Amino acid sequence: MNAIDDLVGQFSRLPGIGRKTALRLTYWLLKRSPEDVRRLARALETVAERVHPCAVCGNLTEEDPCALCASPRRDRTAICVVEDASDVGAIERTGEFQGLYHVLGGRLSPLEGIGPDELNIAGLLARLGNGADVREIIVATNASVEGEATALYLQKVVQPLGLRVTRLARGLPMGGDLEYADGVTIAQALSGRREL
Amino acid sequence: MNAIDDLVGQFSRLPGIGRKTALRLTYWLLKRSPEDVRRLARALETVAERVHPCAVCGNLTEEDPCALCASPRRDRTAICVVEDASDVGAIERTGEFQGLYHVLGGRLSPLEGIGPDELNIAGLLARLGNGADVREIIVATNASVEGEATALYLQKVVQPLGLRVTRLARGLPMGGDLEYADGVTIAQALSGRREL
Repeated sequence: MNAIDDLVGQFSRLPGIGRKTALRLTYWLLKRSPEDVRRLARALETVAERVHPCAVCGNLTEEDPCALCASPRRDRTAICVVEDASDVGAIERTGEFQGLYHVLGGRLSPLEGIGPDELNIAGLLARLGNGADVREIIVATNASVEGEATALYLQKVVQPLGLRVTRLARGLPMGGDLEYADGVTIAQALSGRREL
Repeated sequence: MNAIDDLVGQFSRLPGIGRKTALRLTYWLLKRSPEDVRRLARALETVAERVHPCAVCGNLTEEDPCALCASPRRDRTAICVVEDASDVGAIERTGEFQGLYHVLGGRLSPLEGIGPDELNIAGLLARLGNGADVREIIVATNASVEGEATALYLQKVVQPLGLRVTRLARGLPMGGDLEYADGVTIAQALSGRREL
């Protein structure tokens, strides 16, 4: 296999990138300088070499513990539990949460054989022991069936420790059009309605 | 800048890849093994290192001359002239052309300051001299205004050499719906109509 076909094949493996897009990306890069192509290669190398899960929270990081766990400015009384490391970035970009995180590394999914032992739940419980200051666990798993099941399971194991367990609010998303919203979302927006 | 942000930035530079897609690609890769990520890095490195334009036809290759120019099985009486190296692949995949190629490296575009000297036209004329066997030049530039202008220019400089100069047929594409085709395409399909 030649170098061009190999690169097209590697790009095609990426999610949402078909053969045509892989070809387009490859030929676009081939029109750039070799130094330009190497910059992408080096960024990948660096990530492969340095990025790993934080030993404390499971977030992806180059340091250990990660910058969030190590920061003296974060509120140590609240831990936001998310499915994946990418969710940490999504919440951090809002700038609305000052606490710590815990990355489960997935969600409960009996059909795929993912039970509590496959997720980083033991790590979470360990963080809640050891005389920690944590008072609230914010469960920020996805609003899917599996995300809900994971949230319920966490509630079951964390609440006995005397901690407050909360869940992200459900309802209409910003810009959401009532006419096009699904029934479950509208029902949740109704049941979660607040005083103006 | 940390390694993850750097990779997101590098992906965002690619055509058709915005920040959200770059994030998705990065986190998808971070879930793979480092070895998997390195495979993509190495494919890029190899391309940056080895791939260059063929000294004869301008096609991108790892050898010099390229496999097409070097092949004894290709018909040396016909040269298909294309704008970019990616066009060679598009024609090769049809399996309908057995001749040689010539890559111009773009198309005439006075507005962007691209004249005949910026394209690999001198190289084409050099190939037609030297007692070559070429009898036909198939101009396969894109069906755009600039592609047409480039075709007309090539006709002007090649025809005096006594060679046949042809152009790809214009008309309805396969699966093309007459109702939705633009007027120029229908007009060209009409004027180029053939006996059944």
